[in-house]
Amino acid sequence: MRESGRMSDLAAALRVGPGFTLADIDPDSTPGYRGDHDDGDKDLAKGAVELDGLQERLFANKDHDPRSVLLVLQGMDTAGKGGIVRHVVGSVDVQGVRLRAFKKPTEEELAHDFLWRVRRELPGPGYLGVFDRSHYEDVLIGRVRELAPAEEIERRYGAIVDFENEAIAAGTVIVKAMLHISAEEQHDRLAERLERPDKYWKFNPGDLAERALWSDYQEAYQLALERTSTSAAPWHVVPANRKWYARLAVQQLLLEAFASLGQGWPPPDFDVDEQRRLLGD
Amino acid sequence: MRESGRMSDLAAALRVGPGFTLADIDPDSTPGYRGDHDDGDKDLAKGAVELDGLQERLFANKDHDPRSVLLVLQGMDTAGKGGIVRHVVGSVDVQGVRLRAFKKPTEEELAHDFLWRVRRELPGPGYLGVFDRSHYEDVLIGRVRELAPAEEIERRYGAIVDFENEAIAAGTVIVKAMLHISAEEQHDRLAERLERPDKYWKFNPGDLAERALWSDYQEAYQLALERTSTSAAPWHVVPANRKWYARLAVQQLLLEAFASLGQGWPPPDFDVDEQRRLLGD
Repeated sequence: MRESGRMSDLAAALRVGPGFTLADIDPDSTPGYRGDHDDGDKDLAKGAVELDGLQERLFANKDHDPRSVLLVLQGMDTAGKGGIVRHVVGSVDVQGVRLRAFKKPTEEELAHDFLWRVRRELPGPGYLGVFDRSHYEDVLIGRVRELAPAEEIERRYGAIVDFENEAIAAGTVIVKAMLHISAEEQHDRLAERLERPDKYWKFNPGDLAERALWSDYQEAYQLALERTSTSAAPWHVVPANRKWYARLAVQQLLLEAFASLGQGWPPPDFDVDEQRRLLGD
Repeated sequence: MRESGRMSDLAAALRVGPGFTLADIDPDSTPGYRGDHDDGDKDLAKGAVELDGLQERLFANKDHDPRSVLLVLQGMDTAGKGGIVRHVVGSVDVQGVRLRAFKKPTEEELAHDFLWRVRRELPGPGYLGVFDRSHYEDVLIGRVRELAPAEEIERRYGAIVDFENEAIAAGTVIVKAMLHISAEEQHDRLAERLERPDKYWKFNPGDLAERALWSDYQEAYQLALERTSTSAAPWHVVPANRKWYARLAVQQLLLEAFASLGQGWPPPDFDVDEQRRLLGD
């Protein structure tokens, strides 16, 4: 078995810092990784075992430790959010996962502040929360489609940072990943959905209308990334034309987030010897 | 590769019919399966691929077909419900799973009829719902601990059958599995939780109090199985001393439930050629 192709600075290589420019990121690249597709699949399988163990520890501590992990996934249509849920999140015990796919807001949701529906879906102690789309839609499609007045959109960047800081203070480690594909890659993925009858169900004619606004969305992403990538909850832009790499990269982000908790197994909240005696051992 | 050890009548062998006696079921047995542990693991892996494909079809049809699947899991503490969730349910896309673990009812839940909290957790169209414990607790611990008047407990068997028939009429295929372990096996599993610091968190001193009422619980199960195993939603008693067998058996029940839906891929709800043209192909 060859050494892992995973490099220690993979996460750092994806982090959005000062001077970041989305247009400079090559969606075909594989920053921080020196292996190929085959190596990537092997490393993903190894990482899955590790992630599973770390997640079990988080869950085991749910009555003892207020902390949780939240994965926020963003990306254009077909960027691979569902594949991350399936192939990365899917490797841990579903019992400890709280997945929420945010769709177009309902009437009730629209009647509240944009963070209302998001706040109530934050993971409780011990859980891995996953947002498939998120409050960022409100500064992405919200901005591009002018779904709110310009001042309100402006206000939201700061509101998001405050909201995330509150969640962090309450014990949630936030991992933000934008899956970055090229317009050409999206074309090919949409074309595949229109070619294969087993993929029709994933196609939505509305996707083409959003696609027509590609550059507006890239601008909206640039702004959102710039204004909400904080040191406490940095954004990571994950080149995602190669699905195998994107999965490996998001897995690595999660592995680091879980490892940062430094959790052991919780102490028993009962007298072990007494219980053994009661069991009749 | 040897032939599958899975026999076509596995599900039938577990079904609770007229004259059923729980005490006659050997928790060590492996009805309807002729393979050993190794074969079982291989068959489970094969079944996982099949189940994944069937579940994707169910999910793909969510806007076209009102149907859903609900797995109801019951069993004494340590019977392996969590393992089923992890190793059987965990093999399908978490996106299409609605898992609910029913704990001791809250004040709010107690203020309503016992089915109130259950009804709102029924899976929507396209979803696989999983109940880790369920409305059956209300005729199990409910009966053993006399948590309601005797007449109320009596009323519940019929209410459960009516409730399930309604759900079936609305399109839900219900799979009911009781994981059946022996008292000796439970002893060993509890002892393990008291031996290994990485298992302490799974131990609850309250489990010993319930264990002391083992035969009362077996009686309550016998009654519940007898009175709520209908042809539309039969109970299956799954011998569960061998975890590998229990997983295989529940997977088989799910495979049959999904296959019974006979679903293909949904037709496109758009004009495929027009969308191809719009995409620029």
